[in-house]
Amino acid sequence: MATRSRTPANDGDSNAAAGLLPAGLRDVLPPRAEWEAQASERLIASFTAQGYARVKPPLIEFEETLLAGSGQDLAGQMFRVMDPVSQRMMGLRTDITLQVARIAASRMKDAVRPLRLAYAGQVLRVRGTQLRPERQFAQVGVELIGADALAADVEVAVLAAEAVASLGVAGLSLDITQPLLAPAIIAAHGLDPKQAKAARRALDRKDAAELKAAGGAAAPTLLKLLALAGPAKTALEGLKKLKLPDAAAKIVGDLDKLVAEVSAAAPDLLVTLDPGEFRGFEYHTGIAFTLFARNVRGELGRGGRYVTPAGETATGFTLYLDSVMRALPPQAAPAMVYLPFGTPRSTAVKLRKDGHATWAALDQESTDMKKAAKAAGCSHWWDGKTVQPL
Amino acid sequence: MATRSRTPANDGDSNAAAGLLPAGLRDVLPPRAEWEAQASERLIASFTAQGYARVKPPLIEFEETLLAGSGQDLAGQMFRVMDPVSQRMMGLRTDITLQVARIAASRMKDAVRPLRLAYAGQVLRVRGTQLRPERQFAQVGVELIGADALAADVEVAVLAAEAVASLGVAGLSLDITQPLLAPAIIAAHGLDPKQAKAARRALDRKDAAELKAAGGAAAPTLLKLLALAGPAKTALEGLKKLKLPDAAAKIVGDLDKLVAEVSAAAPDLLVTLDPGEFRGFEYHTGIAFTLFARNVRGELGRGGRYVTPAGETATGFTLYLDSVMRALPPQAAPAMVYLPFGTPRSTAVKLRKDGHATWAALDQESTDMKKAAKAAGCSHWWDGKTVQPL
Repeated sequence: MATRSRTPANDGDSNAAAGLLPAGLRDVLPPRAEWEAQASERLIASFTAQGYARVKPPLIEFEETLLAGSGQDLAGQMFRVMDPVSQRMMGLRTDITLQVARIAASRMKDAVRPLRLAYAGQVLRVRGTQLRPERQFAQVGVELIGADALAADVEVAVLAAEAVASLGVAGLSLDITQPLLAPAIIAAHGLDPKQAKAARRALDRKDAAELKAAGGAAAPTLLKLLALAGPAKTALEGLKKLKLPDAAAKIVGDLDKLVAEVSAAAPDLLVTLDPGEFRGFEYHTGIAFTLFARNVRGELGRGGRYVTPAGETATGFTLYLDSVMRALPPQAAPAMVYLPFGTPRSTAVKLRKDGHATWAALDQESTDMKKAAKAAGCSHWWDGKTVQPL
Repeated sequence: MATRSRTPANDGDSNAAAGLLPAGLRDVLPPRAEWEAQASERLIASFTAQGYARVKPPLIEFEETLLAGSGQDLAGQMFRVMDPVSQRMMGLRTDITLQVARIAASRMKDAVRPLRLAYAGQVLRVRGTQLRPERQFAQVGVELIGADALAADVEVAVLAAEAVASLGVAGLSLDITQPLLAPAIIAAHGLDPKQAKAARRALDRKDAAELKAAGGAAAPTLLKLLALAGPAKTALEGLKKLKLPDAAAKIVGDLDKLVAEVSAAAPDLLVTLDPGEFRGFEYHTGIAFTLFARNVRGELGRGGRYVTPAGETATGFTLYLDSVMRALPPQAAPAMVYLPFGTPRSTAVKLRKDGHATWAALDQESTDMKKAAKAAGCSHWWDGKTVQPL
């Protein structure tokens, strides 16, 4: 065999450490790359089982299309390249939701509503964050476009939890919020723009003292929103006791129905409510949620109601495959049968037909057969007559 | 429902036509996006069944890494972006083979050889070609690293054909070449560098007259190489009758063994040989091949032996998923059961447990139930008691 390597060695944990790959970008190795791909496909299978049809938008498109509407939020995170064909700037997608909305508004504009679409793909960002240092990661999700019924909100929330649970993730919690609730209360109390802004900032920081000072007439109710964050049932009991303006009362009524239906559909799911939350949900126009797993860093996914750039109401969610992978129970390496040098092809074909994965030696073994099989990462070997465990 | 669309309409066939997407980039819609993903996963499953383990390199990495060795060939096709973290240039990959070789030489340098790796992913190119106008397309393939036995060449050639055939593609042909054969003949006849260059150019153009004029003492043999292109068995019979220098005779002997083994393993495969071919195989260092399907435009894939930038011998192949999709027999749209508005969740759950995909109405139908079901793209509907075909 020829010389192996001219590339610098590393600690085996990260290419970035050796300067081989840029920070936040990485090679996914066996068996993890296979687990990731299978998890992604199983999530999509959960979605297609409920009528969501897969679409695949491109990794790159015109910058201005990617920056439409809420896309603007990630403008600073977008890699840009010049298109020599059109002489226009293109961007590498930072998110897939807006691309799906674009498809719904263009090539699928005549498709019947509600339109159920699913996707799985890579996104790229210019810089990582402290919580997610990765600059490339996979998003897997659905969009349900053109349905304003509460049943749509229930469907996507339950689907997100069910799909992740079907991978074997236990201890899931769904943290629900409705970013229009606090603004509805602020608006009804006639706060002036400066006061309203201060109150929102205080809520955003979850700073009760500041909220008390800044909230004016809305302060007592807003303080209750802060205090009620927690298990959804208790939070809703508290919310229903408040004297709320009509718009806010309607929101609470919908949350109440949603929580009841979600809990009925997914009894193992811990449902919490953060009624004062709107940070990170700026572009949501209704019920929104974040999915977590007990003892797993970072959110597994998030979703909620929004309006597409074309003006359609929609809801949906995105799962972050890297976080979902962290939540998975340990997986066993796949079984594989070592075929000693000279094993006839017909044997290999037969074993594969019987469902075995095979690993064929291509040269005469210079060592003990079992040792060679183990070194190759096999779990079994063919002794000439039967498959033997190693 | 809100206003549908502010984006320009198009012919329904292509976003590019409407200026919505850059030329050569496209949205893949249902059901094709699902078929594509499933074809990709089934190809990978064929590879893992023979011990190839999936790796997933990033979409972007340092330019200089992507341009190592044969990567230079696609330098003009690479989109480049500045990395604000390292202040170094990064490139969007135009190919995956070299990334896999990099993994083999870095994080997997201590893994036992032969190393069998598989991959599936998107690549991007600055410009399309006439044969492949797409600027983003999927590559699915394997690399077999560190095995110089002829058995390795046989394994990858048969695997490429078997994997594609397992998707239902018929009429496959494997066009084999050995780009070192003609140079071995040229070298043995002592042509001077200028003559050798002229002879190679004539071979490259398959121009017999020019070859006769330029080939000097090697001309008669080289003309035979040109003339013998065709079914492998006949070509080999002709080659074996030639008086060849030792290096060339060794190559012919190996080709003979390879063709015999490939034909035995894949009797339905049409095997052809183009003994004078080396165009497009400049970086190959041994047996190479191209896979075609009858009546399908463009090659489905190509592969062959090469040396990694780290100096290891390797062979492998890449399948182009867009070409493979063109070769697939027509597929049926997936079955889906329409659930009229108000169908209990328990019914939906039960149907999905029984293997049905469901599509739930979220609002009271304003029209005939069957009509609504058809409009939604369903093949069946739930009449309250059983699943009925539409």
